Amino acid sequence: MASPVESRRPELRKDSVTNRWVIFSPARAKRPSDFKSKSPAPSSTDSPQTCPFCIGQEHHCAPEIFRFPPQNPDWKVRVIQNLYPALSRDKDLDSSTSLSSGSLLWGCLLDGYGFHDVIIESPVHSVHLSDLTPEDVAQVLFAYKKRILQLASDDSIKYVQVFKNHGASAGASMTHSHSQMVGLPVIPPSVTTRLDSMKQYFNETGKCSICHVPTKDLLVDESVHFISVVPYAASFPFELWIVPRDHVSHFHELDQEKAVDLGGLLKVTLIKMSLQLNKPPFNFMIHTSPLQASDSDLAYSHWFFQIVPHLSGVGGFELGTGCYINPVFPEDAAKVMREVNIS
Amino acid sequence: MASPVESRRPELRKDSVTNRWVIFSPARAKRPSDFKSKSPAPSSTDSPQTCPFCIGQEHHCAPEIFRFPPQNPDWKVRVIQNLYPALSRDKDLDSSTSLSSGSLLWGCLLDGYGFHDVIIESPVHSVHLSDLTPEDVAQVLFAYKKRILQLASDDSIKYVQVFKNHGASAGASMTHSHSQMVGLPVIPPSVTTRLDSMKQYFNETGKCSICHVPTKDLLVDESVHFISVVPYAASFPFELWIVPRDHVSHFHELDQEKAVDLGGLLKVTLIKMSLQLNKPPFNFMIHTSPLQASDSDLAYSHWFFQIVPHLSGVGGFELGTGCYINPVFPEDAAKVMREVNIS
Ligand SMILES: Nc1ncnc2c1ncn2[C@@H]1O[C@H](COP(=O)(O)OP(=O)(O)O[C@H]2O[C@H](CO)[C@@H](O)[C@H](O)[C@H]2O)[C@@H](O)[C@H]1O
Ligand SMILES: Nc1ncnc2c1ncn2[C@@H]1O[C@H](COP(=O)(O)OP(=O)(O)O[C@H]2O[C@H](CO)[C@@H](O)[C@H](O)[C@H]2O)[C@@H](O)[C@H]1O
Repeated sequence: MASPVESRRPELRKDSVTNRWVIFSPARAKRPSDFKSKSPAPSSTDSPQTCPFCIGQEHHCAPEIFRFPPQNPDWKVRVIQNLYPALSRDKDLDSSTSLSSGSLLWGCLLDGYGFHDVIIESPVHSVHLSDLTPEDVAQVLFAYKKRILQLASDDSIKYVQVFKNHGASAGASMTHSHSQMVGLPVIPPSVTTRLDSMKQYFNETGKCSICHVPTKDLLVDESVHFISVVPYAASFPFELWIVPRDHVSHFHELDQEKAVDLGGLLKVTLIKMSLQLNKPPFNFMIHTSPLQASDSDLAYSHWFFQIVPHLSGVGGFELGTGCYINPVFPEDAAKVMREVNIS
Repeated sequence: MASPVESRRPELRKDSVTNRWVIFSPARAKRPSDFKSKSPAPSSTDSPQTCPFCIGQEHHCAPEIFRFPPQNPDWKVRVIQNLYPALSRDKDLDSSTSLSSGSLLWGCLLDGYGFHDVIIESPVHSVHLSDLTPEDVAQVLFAYKKRILQLASDDSIKYVQVFKNHGASAGASMTHSHSQMVGLPVIPPSVTTRLDSMKQYFNETGKCSICHVPTKDLLVDESVHFISVVPYAASFPFELWIVPRDHVSHFHELDQEKAVDLGGLLKVTLIKMSLQLNKPPFNFMIHTSPLQASDSDLAYSHWFFQIVPHLSGVGGFELGTGCYINPVFPEDAAKVMREVNIS
């Protein structure tokens, strides 16, 4: 196995100006990268011989958490610890850091306890998520679910962020198809903002804003249990959401039948994006509810998938304002995506 | 002069889930780019012969707003309209859009009225901002100030965001040294969050959080009227803030003496960053107060400069949570920046 990285414990800090949690994690600086120059062309180190995520190379990875099928050398999905984790899975025995800092007057400081895992989506280096069958995509989704349920048993973990980076300009440092999961000791700022906004809509209209998501002109595809739409105020060109038709607050309530249905729609969506936008780098994120959400919160909170192709970067305007500039109207993006022919 | 771009009027939309304003601006899709492949190497079109921002090429630019020195063919700084503006500087005569949309039930819609200008920082193609003398940097800062004061006379404009993109991966599509300014009809979300946070600190401590910014271990440099620090919860590695020592709410209160002092510190900071971090792409943003801020708001709001070198991209975790992972502790970054020798 690769050797663990020794360094200062991670910390979470928030200052009194931006009011945003930041994770300080020196271990992250030591990550290797398949992408030497952040250029879209795969680098020479990108080969199954040297990739730790490939089948047969398990000993080059940080410890495994579980695999599907269990105990099978011929695995389809593996969930492993991240070798360069943003947070530390060991509880801090000496909690003095959180008391001794003079800067505390000016912000907040939390010990960086939490979990950071990697989900290897396929045993084979060159296979992308969209190459899998709907049933195999469902296995990946089930791996997220199983791991979220494990994390939920730890009272210190408040929120789990599942995300995928595909392609160098979407942040990926590894090319072998994978996604990640971070179990956080705080509810992150975008989640709080989203829930506050959905709550306000619910209080004003009596309806869940996602059950009520606009589909006129914005619908792209439908499956039995899900729809895909371009959101009304998409931050990014060709951003897409996949939304469960039923009001469900937590992603981890997904059952087998719905997982296969979602797997199919996710596959179709990624294929369409790849065809129409010339294989763009992309991210996806699962937006779910906090683990310990109260019953009253569940009334207005509804999980969904957000998929963001990377077509242009952002600049100082977005960094400064938190406001995005999107050159493509959502109804135009939806029309283009509806018309892609994948047969 | 280059011909203006015809297209659908820009719109600002906010949905009921993310609660974030997004500017939809089809004109932006038509921008040319010096950087064909978003690679750090300058492209072949990047030459003074074809650059509209170079002296002698003024007729290839959108209309000029003013120049320093005024009416002088031998200008040092020009402020011009952005040829591909995110917002429209013409008032909408037919305001029916904001009433007719059915989606309004689900979000907010505003006509995209506002201003988007470019500040050309030097007449010469190869001269960077950090190559200028402190007095010439002060001229650029004064150009921001003069234009902000012009925009402030329009009651519809609530906030002005000044920003600079340097280098392709920081978003720049043009290499000739320039910055931009957007006059917005709304107060953007990050500004609201920042002001709420500073207000809370003020209510709890009776102090302005920026007057009180922590300097122990975090100070980098000092000038007569300003200090530079790494913020306590820096979102990005080697992020720096330049903060006025006196409590001043609006950037546009800057006087001549302070502008030269700030020009000198900004120059030193950019040179240090360039030396220490190997000429990184970067953004800077001026964080100021809303134009129509009330007297009680001015008590806790204090403008500052934020400078962000681009050393690594962001991925799905940051997009999903709004929470950043920074591998470099602020006190370590400050130490490194303090020790750069620029003599
Ligand atoms: N042998 C091994 N065993 C186990 N794990 C291994 C391993 N070798 C590498 N890893 C881990 O595998 C992960 C691969 O993740 P990605 O390629 O999706 O992006 P990464 O997390 O590097 O950063 C991107 O995503 C994060 C989060 O969004 C951003 O902060 C960052 O800027 C962006 O580049 C890395 O986190 C790495 O630590
Ligand atoms: N002849 C001419 N006359 C007048 N103006 C001209 C012109 N030719 C080009 N321009 C304008 O000059 C500006 C140059 O700006 P930058 O290089 O800083 O980045 P840009 O705005 O393209 O996008 C970056 O910044 C924005 C805002 O942060 C992000 O939305 C985007 O993703 C990122 O790439 C462009 O806005 C362009 O429209």
